[in-house]
Amino acid sequence: MMPEDPTRILVDTVQKLQRRGHKRNLQNLLDKTRPADIAILLRHIPEPEEQLRLFRVIEEVDKKAEVLSEMAPTVLPGFLGALSDDALVPLLEEMPGDDTADILEFVSEERKSALLRKMSREEMTEAQDLLQYDPETAGGIMVPDFFALSEELTCDLAIQALRDVHDELEMVFYAYVTNAHGHLVGVLSLREVVTAPPDTPLRDVMETEVTRVRTSDDQETVARLVARYNLLALPVVDDNNCLVGIVTVDDVIDVIREEATEDMFRMAGAGDATFGFDTGSIFASTRSRLPWLFASWIGGVLAGGIIQGYEERLLQVAALAAFIPVIIGMAGNVGTQSLTVVTRGLALGQINTHQIVKVVGRELAVGVFCGFIYGALLGVAGAVLISFQGGDINPMRFGLAVGLALCTGMLIAAAVGAAVPMLLHRLSIDPAVATGPFVTTSVDILGVLVYFNLATVLLGL
Amino acid sequence: MMPEDPTRILVDTVQKLQRRGHKRNLQNLLDKTRPADIAILLRHIPEPEEQLRLFRVIEEVDKKAEVLSEMAPTVLPGFLGALSDDALVPLLEEMPGDDTADILEFVSEERKSALLRKMSREEMTEAQDLLQYDPETAGGIMVPDFFALSEELTCDLAIQALRDVHDELEMVFYAYVTNAHGHLVGVLSLREVVTAPPDTPLRDVMETEVTRVRTSDDQETVARLVARYNLLALPVVDDNNCLVGIVTVDDVIDVIREEATEDMFRMAGAGDATFGFDTGSIFASTRSRLPWLFASWIGGVLAGGIIQGYEERLLQVAALAAFIPVIIGMAGNVGTQSLTVVTRGLALGQINTHQIVKVVGRELAVGVFCGFIYGALLGVAGAVLISFQGGDINPMRFGLAVGLALCTGMLIAAAVGAAVPMLLHRLSIDPAVATGPFVTTSVDILGVLVYFNLATVLLGL
Repeated sequence: MMPEDPTRILVDTVQKLQRRGHKRNLQNLLDKTRPADIAILLRHIPEPEEQLRLFRVIEEVDKKAEVLSEMAPTVLPGFLGALSDDALVPLLEEMPGDDTADILEFVSEERKSALLRKMSREEMTEAQDLLQYDPETAGGIMVPDFFALSEELTCDLAIQALRDVHDELEMVFYAYVTNAHGHLVGVLSLREVVTAPPDTPLRDVMETEVTRVRTSDDQETVARLVARYNLLALPVVDDNNCLVGIVTVDDVIDVIREEATEDMFRMAGAGDATFGFDTGSIFASTRSRLPWLFASWIGGVLAGGIIQGYEERLLQVAALAAFIPVIIGMAGNVGTQSLTVVTRGLALGQINTHQIVKVVGRELAVGVFCGFIYGALLGVAGAVLISFQGGDINPMRFGLAVGLALCTGMLIAAAVGAAVPMLLHRLSIDPAVATGPFVTTSVDILGVLVYFNLATVLLGL
Repeated sequence: MMPEDPTRILVDTVQKLQRRGHKRNLQNLLDKTRPADIAILLRHIPEPEEQLRLFRVIEEVDKKAEVLSEMAPTVLPGFLGALSDDALVPLLEEMPGDDTADILEFVSEERKSALLRKMSREEMTEAQDLLQYDPETAGGIMVPDFFALSEELTCDLAIQALRDVHDELEMVFYAYVTNAHGHLVGVLSLREVVTAPPDTPLRDVMETEVTRVRTSDDQETVARLVARYNLLALPVVDDNNCLVGIVTVDDVIDVIREEATEDMFRMAGAGDATFGFDTGSIFASTRSRLPWLFASWIGGVLAGGIIQGYEERLLQVAALAAFIPVIIGMAGNVGTQSLTVVTRGLALGQINTHQIVKVVGRELAVGVFCGFIYGALLGVAGAVLISFQGGDINPMRFGLAVGLALCTGMLIAAAVGAAVPMLLHRLSIDPAVATGPFVTTSVDILGVLVYFNLATVLLGL
């Protein structure tokens, strides 16, 4: 058994206190609960009005802002709808710029303009700057609050500067060093600043090779660099190499989890990952899954059309129908295996598209081995079955037909499952999208075709 | 088209330089290349001897150690086999303790003992301490080098202490505060230490509610806490609440990527994730995938057995066979969708097992909608098809049979796909393991059963 879930205990306690009107106790409990946990708690409360009632119990505006930034994208629209502009504006001003921009993506254009107008000039400009970037790029996930120092500064003045900025910055790990033009020229860890001789100019202690990304770079690129080089933050530059923001490691963790979930949902044809845990909208979820199922539907209908074309032979040897599920099922599974291995390898940067021959060859080899083993097993099963049935079908030939069909189907599936993501990736299309349904569909059709043709030839139908 | 892959350029350049014997240029190139990139480079070199030749070109022992810690688990066994004990020991001593322990997991018990004996006493003890923990727990991924200070210390003395430990520690973000018994009692960010009034004792500025894990906690728990609370490091305590190590955010990123890959491979029945990008061992990969395919094989054969039982009816209405692929295929896809949504929701902690009725109900509802839409479509297609064929089958009834079978099959699949991972999770079994093949297998069998029974009743066979 799993240990009792702490979230559930929290939800139960809060609901009990709320029902009994113990406002004071509720306040104490929320004071001690971290913003991230309150955000999770709010996801378990069904009605936006009820969520808002609890949210209002939180006293400090900075904690409220943090809770709002941590809230799930599925709860946000309803919650924001219940929250008045006057209550929302101070929270938007309080949170880091990237979070403000994220929240504003969830309201209508009209309301967005109204909210921006009500915000302080500085906060508004910052949010507007960030809103111009695609939310899934480096520009979209960066914060414009970074700690940048001139290369002329000495280490002790740098520490002084650090004390001065104290409360404004989110997380400081690196001091970025810029030249007179604002170009990023170096980086120092905070620790290097603290431990270097106080009168050294930063220019002499800084690292000059700085890993950086452009505002337009995809968030997956950002995540891969941070993961590969074990970074805590990554500087973001504009087209002129001027430092405009940083992406911090905590946002990268969210990106990695998000992208992995997205990939899984896409590969399973489960549509948009934001509907995954949405306990509210069954219709949105249905709408997002329907198109992927259509590929499978078409594939099945086409495979059915092919079977229909062999009706005469099916009437001669009805046992042929019995082997349809195992042949298309196994081929589909092998195809999914190859697909997953290759798609994930591409996502993690472990294989590149130039290795297409090698990768497909390797999956083909695995397909041959698996196909041979299960084909042989099925061939024997088929031969035994048909010989018990009697009739004038040659058991050896029948076994050969089903075994060979399974083996060939699995071979084709492995090749398709490996080749399709490689080709899509080469065309700059995310291989996780739609590959799943596409592979199973083509494998359905090809599998049935191979099976009935082999049976026709080998059984002389 | 994708931009030219930088890894490929690096691999090509290195191989060219090596072939032409330009040792000096090669050295310059490797000097400028980061350890993580060299590790990726080595993965693209087929032979361990060749890898070793390149590895030897790296001059500094600390860079060599970093390259070794970054090397992929698929290249490691071969590479370690080619490396002599005398070359390996200094590298093991140089790298952080958790990496030493990880590397030692890849050699035989005999060699492990021999290597430990050759290491310095301190490094050996550290590695041995870490080797006692399961590699997938907090103990297995922690480093025993942390920055801990007594609660009595003042902030300026703490900065002094920080200057002194300078080179020994990997990454310092937080100063952990312990009492006289070594119990973890507080935490401070490095920045708080630097910016607080110099003569304040740490006790007065530290945060006393410290999120912590035990050595035996699963690495997924660690990852979830770090992601939820945006931490840079998490302290690990033993059963007496004594601080024994920390897990840093860079290791957590690796855990998150690893676990996501593992989940995907398991759900696809693609076996062990370490064989995913292994371009060497086709046999290992085949062996790891075979068992999952067996579930599918059995399912297909059983479904075939059921179809065989309806042979008589199949001979009366051969068109029934044509609809087998679409019915089991679509049901399988819906099952996979529900499975993915629920498994991922559980892995991310978005749903808990107490919500089983709600979650299964929701997936069932989505299944009803999808099933109704595609069932209606298929019903019409079936009715049209059979009426063109002529014969004495009632087209309406035939359409009803296939449409209803598809709808029911999808309904069952959604319920199974949602319920199975919930139940497994409740039994503390990772729902990502084997659920995929299990769900498609049961859906195959149930789908065929429903289909032929509906046809029998509705067509009066």
